[in-house]
Amino acid sequence: MSTGLISSSPNSPPTARLTSIVSHLSNVRPKVVICRHLGPAMPLLEDRKDIEVVLWPEDRSCERSWLLEQIKGAAGVLVFLSDRVNEELLEAAGPNLRVVSTMSVGYEHIDLPLMAQRKIRVGYTPDVLTEAVADICVMLALMAGRNDGAAYSLVKNGDWAKPKYAWSPFTFCGPQLSVTPSSPTRTVGFLGFGRIAQATLARLIPFGITHCLYTGSPSSRPDTARDAALQATHKLKALERVEADRLARESDILFVLTPGGAETYHLVDAAFLRKMKPMSVLVNTSRGSVVDSDALATALREKWIWGAGLDVVEGEPLISEDHPLVKEPQCVIVPHIGSATFQTRLDMATRAIKNLYGGLFGEEMPAELGKQ
Amino acid sequence: MSTGLISSSPNSPPTARLTSIVSHLSNVRPKVVICRHLGPAMPLLEDRKDIEVVLWPEDRSCERSWLLEQIKGAAGVLVFLSDRVNEELLEAAGPNLRVVSTMSVGYEHIDLPLMAQRKIRVGYTPDVLTEAVADICVMLALMAGRNDGAAYSLVKNGDWAKPKYAWSPFTFCGPQLSVTPSSPTRTVGFLGFGRIAQATLARLIPFGITHCLYTGSPSSRPDTARDAALQATHKLKALERVEADRLARESDILFVLTPGGAETYHLVDAAFLRKMKPMSVLVNTSRGSVVDSDALATALREKWIWGAGLDVVEGEPLISEDHPLVKEPQCVIVPHIGSATFQTRLDMATRAIKNLYGGLFGEEMPAELGKQ
Repeated sequence: MSTGLISSSPNSPPTARLTSIVSHLSNVRPKVVICRHLGPAMPLLEDRKDIEVVLWPEDRSCERSWLLEQIKGAAGVLVFLSDRVNEELLEAAGPNLRVVSTMSVGYEHIDLPLMAQRKIRVGYTPDVLTEAVADICVMLALMAGRNDGAAYSLVKNGDWAKPKYAWSPFTFCGPQLSVTPSSPTRTVGFLGFGRIAQATLARLIPFGITHCLYTGSPSSRPDTARDAALQATHKLKALERVEADRLARESDILFVLTPGGAETYHLVDAAFLRKMKPMSVLVNTSRGSVVDSDALATALREKWIWGAGLDVVEGEPLISEDHPLVKEPQCVIVPHIGSATFQTRLDMATRAIKNLYGGLFGEEMPAELGKQ
Repeated sequence: MSTGLISSSPNSPPTARLTSIVSHLSNVRPKVVICRHLGPAMPLLEDRKDIEVVLWPEDRSCERSWLLEQIKGAAGVLVFLSDRVNEELLEAAGPNLRVVSTMSVGYEHIDLPLMAQRKIRVGYTPDVLTEAVADICVMLALMAGRNDGAAYSLVKNGDWAKPKYAWSPFTFCGPQLSVTPSSPTRTVGFLGFGRIAQATLARLIPFGITHCLYTGSPSSRPDTARDAALQATHKLKALERVEADRLARESDILFVLTPGGAETYHLVDAAFLRKMKPMSVLVNTSRGSVVDSDALATALREKWIWGAGLDVVEGEPLISEDHPLVKEPQCVIVPHIGSATFQTRLDMATRAIKNLYGGLFGEEMPAELGKQ
């Protein structure tokens, strides 16, 4: 289906390129709306003389009314998770809009069928955050095992200096992530075994991890060749795809790395947690909805497991100081900062800008939805 | 020199074994004093029928008066850093004492020349804590880079739910430990390059570390063969022994892993910190005295460096909530828990008990001071 307008046929590169050339010749630069300042990535936009940039000027999510006004006649828009891209926005934009670029891995805020119908290209930013999130997986596993919430608070509150804190041979002890001569095996488990899980596994190898178990998505088929290669690369005693039951029972450190949504809702519930080892540690850096918060709080309080490290919590960011997990000393929570490094956010912003240009000038987009 | 008493000549195994046999035959079991409950290691003592165990019954350091009373006639004593082993203690013990075993790496509480003079053997517990401390080195490097003090406190205080915390593309960002395609090199630096440093380096390799610099002790000679082998094993672009000046200037992540004492006092001072990169992170897990706390607080406040992660602070444990480093948001401090894992402390306790038995029965001690 075609709207019949040259500028809304971006999937046809020669036509789009023609549009661009026409724009140049007529000295009409395509307008792009940027819904948030992109920090150190801004020069990539500001240095371009062939586009007109309209930027939301404040350090908060852009107001809807501002966006609906500014998008009139725009050829592209760079959005975030909080900006809904729906019929209302497209109507306000008019027929010139040919690309929507979101600086996010998720795209639940974009009406994809509508985009396809209007032939508006959509870019997003997958993959670039793998390494940053794998880093925080290791950090949270160590913090949860080593009682870091309590240890950090003790110093912060000035209690290190007080007699009530006295050293003893087993004060502040927790399970050790790395192996020791007297404790020479460790099993790491992954609920979901995508890129972040594999990057996390690689980081744990020098700690002496000996066994790796994982669950795959029900719709995916086992990949025994890949698994055999990974096991050999990492010199593991075992690397196996298993059912959730065995994952829970055997993991010393268990990482939740599934996508969110209805299919994975509360996969980690009371029944799952009851099967886990008393000295095990749970880490969730994917989506809060996968873990039942009440069940986890009970598991920690009643010592079914040793500790938990969370970058995500169901219902975030509305997590108050009396949330059962926030109150739990054996739970370490950070506010969804998995991808929050300058390098990764800059890579995400850069990719979003490159997607925007690709769509704007009818060229390839580094990560285009619907084009795998 | 010999005291002329059989039981005080433990360096002569046949004689000592004779003593042991005589003890058995006469049904007089050697008495050992244990200055603190050893938790899960206690069965190693309690199951032995050939010794008489006297244990300090409380969950705090043993009282001096108790120790001086109980040690009368003892053949061995298992002590901790807080128990001074000096002439007073030896006089109270009498001539039967043939072994002092400390559950610690340090031995500054033991009068070693006096022990040599009296031919009393001394055991300690080095090496076994290498892996536990290397784990916490990685944890603190990640926490310091990723603003973990502030991130953890935000959730703990319930501020995640409040409007004053709003997501933005660079909120809570910090330098990324792992490499990214747009930031493909990382230099890790070690002030001191012993076992813990090398175990830490190994853990960082899968994060994509590309360069390693270190300073050696002035009394040690460069070991180019070892360095070349390590560089090859870890596939590093460089591994070099350098002067402190270059270490400070080039490290992205810098670990302080020297011994304490006068020779390393304030090696990390204002001049050193001023040379460091603005996005670098400092981690100290060795001795607080190596780092000038006031200079570090200034460096963090004035952003000479990005962040710091400390397991040790000069003057610990008397570190109150208004200590300049405790108040500094970019500083993460934990209360000297580097070796605090059940596995490692159990290994330390086990080694201390084995040292005790070795000395008691004139056999080999797993780690004996003065016997390298």
